[in-house]
Amino acid sequence: MGFDAIEVITTKRDRGELSTALIDWVVDAYTRGEVADEQMSALLMAILLNGMNRREIADWTQAMIRSGERMDWSILDRPTADKHSTGGVGDKITLPLAPLVAACGAYVPQLSGRGLGHTGGTLDKLESIPGWRASLSNDEMLRVIRTAGAVVCAAGSGLAPADKKLYALRDVTGTVESIPLIASSVMSKKIAEGTGSLVLDVKVGSGAFMKDVAGARELARTMVALGTDAGVRTVALLTAMDRPLGKAVGNALEVAEAVEVLAGGGPADVVGLTVRLAREMLEAAGIPDARDPEEALKDGSAMDAWRRMITAQGGDPDAPLPKAAESLELTAPASGVLTRLDAMSVGLAAWRLGAGRARKEDPVSAGAGVTLHAKPGDPVSAGRPLMTLHADDPARFERAVEALDGAYEIGASADPGLLPLIVDRVTA
Amino acid sequence: MGFDAIEVITTKRDRGELSTALIDWVVDAYTRGEVADEQMSALLMAILLNGMNRREIADWTQAMIRSGERMDWSILDRPTADKHSTGGVGDKITLPLAPLVAACGAYVPQLSGRGLGHTGGTLDKLESIPGWRASLSNDEMLRVIRTAGAVVCAAGSGLAPADKKLYALRDVTGTVESIPLIASSVMSKKIAEGTGSLVLDVKVGSGAFMKDVAGARELARTMVALGTDAGVRTVALLTAMDRPLGKAVGNALEVAEAVEVLAGGGPADVVGLTVRLAREMLEAAGIPDARDPEEALKDGSAMDAWRRMITAQGGDPDAPLPKAAESLELTAPASGVLTRLDAMSVGLAAWRLGAGRARKEDPVSAGAGVTLHAKPGDPVSAGRPLMTLHADDPARFERAVEALDGAYEIGASADPGLLPLIVDRVTA
Repeated sequence: MGFDAIEVITTKRDRGELSTALIDWVVDAYTRGEVADEQMSALLMAILLNGMNRREIADWTQAMIRSGERMDWSILDRPTADKHSTGGVGDKITLPLAPLVAACGAYVPQLSGRGLGHTGGTLDKLESIPGWRASLSNDEMLRVIRTAGAVVCAAGSGLAPADKKLYALRDVTGTVESIPLIASSVMSKKIAEGTGSLVLDVKVGSGAFMKDVAGARELARTMVALGTDAGVRTVALLTAMDRPLGKAVGNALEVAEAVEVLAGGGPADVVGLTVRLAREMLEAAGIPDARDPEEALKDGSAMDAWRRMITAQGGDPDAPLPKAAESLELTAPASGVLTRLDAMSVGLAAWRLGAGRARKEDPVSAGAGVTLHAKPGDPVSAGRPLMTLHADDPARFERAVEALDGAYEIGASADPGLLPLIVDRVTA
Repeated sequence: MGFDAIEVITTKRDRGELSTALIDWVVDAYTRGEVADEQMSALLMAILLNGMNRREIADWTQAMIRSGERMDWSILDRPTADKHSTGGVGDKITLPLAPLVAACGAYVPQLSGRGLGHTGGTLDKLESIPGWRASLSNDEMLRVIRTAGAVVCAAGSGLAPADKKLYALRDVTGTVESIPLIASSVMSKKIAEGTGSLVLDVKVGSGAFMKDVAGARELARTMVALGTDAGVRTVALLTAMDRPLGKAVGNALEVAEAVEVLAGGGPADVVGLTVRLAREMLEAAGIPDARDPEEALKDGSAMDAWRRMITAQGGDPDAPLPKAAESLELTAPASGVLTRLDAMSVGLAAWRLGAGRARKEDPVSAGAGVTLHAKPGDPVSAGRPLMTLHADDPARFERAVEALDGAYEIGASADPGLLPLIVDRVTA
């Protein structure tokens, strides 16, 4: 096409705008190996530092989508809805949410990922259920979604291969932390997945990628614009990740908490966010006769959908979940109110206990993690259990306890600086 | 050492200062292949966009010097002096200058380079002399410098190998145009070359890397600071490159003009700049009884040094120089004064005629180039020769003439906007 990589790089380096043709060419040429890794990483750094405008981000996203297949659910007789979270500590919401929304009347085709670093991955959590399989063919996906109304599985290699190659490069070149690149990476996969509507859960706080509300709002706006421009009805919630979500952090521990929610119990924040996201998804999907999510939790229909979904993917919903061999209880050093419990520190502790991985190829421990006995705002008593650490190898406790040093405070009353559970809502 | 590439990249990406230890580690690890090309190119783009301070640039330069050998001329009985030009069109100054300074009392050990793009390279020019060899061992360099007082040859692979690897990477990743990276590249080679003093000729104007005086002054200050910090007495002149230097542009054509200067003739600007740079070099070298350069041109002692230098490197100073097979004369379209003659356009024309190369591995034509019959400020007559183009293949004339379209203007009087030959002088 007569373009060359240096032209693309120097245009963005010098704060110019990349034309649609240049973006199409460079993403395609990189995927084919004609543009070298060292050229793409220089371009990615220039994008990270000089930004892209809405048109450039949309073109970049479309070019990544066109690098692979785009799924199509129009064969189904009801609208599709999906949710994507930018990742946090204790965020197991997909587990109760997908069957709940299915029970209320929408189809939920969710391609999900694995965890890296301190944030967990939905597939890692579900894999703690004996027999459950993350990898499905397109035909198997269709069968599961027709059986259960929802499917949560791994993205196949045919979906946005440009994004896969770019993500691996960003990971080793210090070019992950760019809103245009994060937004286009997430949205290329979600748009290629073929969902008709999408609710984004953009986490804010120490345990999230976005530490402050302004950054989270910008990321949310960028992703909502991308989805909208691509014909996907998209809305975003900004939600709190200054403290962990729920009381369980770790793979099997979070599955158990999700099942509690589906059984009508569970921590208030997990229930509240699950119901709110379900309502957003049903509204975005445009289902006029949708059932009420609180009803579907109460009457067991959400639990029924969960059991069908797990069973259809080879899992046994009644099998006991794996438990870690060892545990260690941390007690409250004083009486009062838990004023602060830092999400990042708890996530780091769970990671060090074995719940997460340092490298993509590492295994995770199903049973490892942290159980919280109090959340910010709850009363605590000196000497009473504050949290329990779980690990297969007791040698892991020392560094996990180190991660929790200074992670919480006990005072007279709840910290007014805590974020509300739902911080903001962003629409097109 | 416990560092990793991502730490270095993200520090500079986030506008942080790189510590001496981080710079030492990353330059060394890259040279050894432990840091990958795609990581270094991301770092180079971050440096280009976010800059480096004086300490960082000095550390970066020292790390590149330490990647190879550092030459030592203390065995010689007189001080050493060198000159480096940032490159321009018709810039053959090294050819008369090195033997002239040798004739006045300093030793000149000059490691030089080849041309790329529209600017010529000193080694390409000298190679048009039959028999002359650019590649010398360290022992041969010492023998030539003792015989002739000056040596101009190719840098061996042992000198700043980190710079060689980095330069090749910058060339393909759009990261050439960075003052810290240009300055450290030039100065690492010059400091490793072991010269005791250095005069920098920083070109300004359309035919130079630096198009404006402010950028050239910043580059000059950065390089003077680097030399000074490394114990090399360094001074810089900013000189005009809005029009070509002298009247010959092309390899053998420029050798012939250099010989004219050594014979006491030659264009006024080439003579003036050669003498001024010779005086700066002798002053920087600190030679109290230095001979006067104008005298050394007049009495033939500079010419004698030139002949010894060429002969000692295998060349025949009396052999006829190669001539291009074909020529084309361009005549003045009107009478008046030549008000403007764009350096970049003339450089591009000479390049298209075969004097330069597009890729490092391309050969150059010795005889190709442009002879100017008038310089800005000179009177011209309609229909009389303005310039002559030389090429081995007449098919090259068309695109060379295209490059000269709009490259000159004829008016009533010289353009007062022309830069003075010496624009500024920068000292530590």
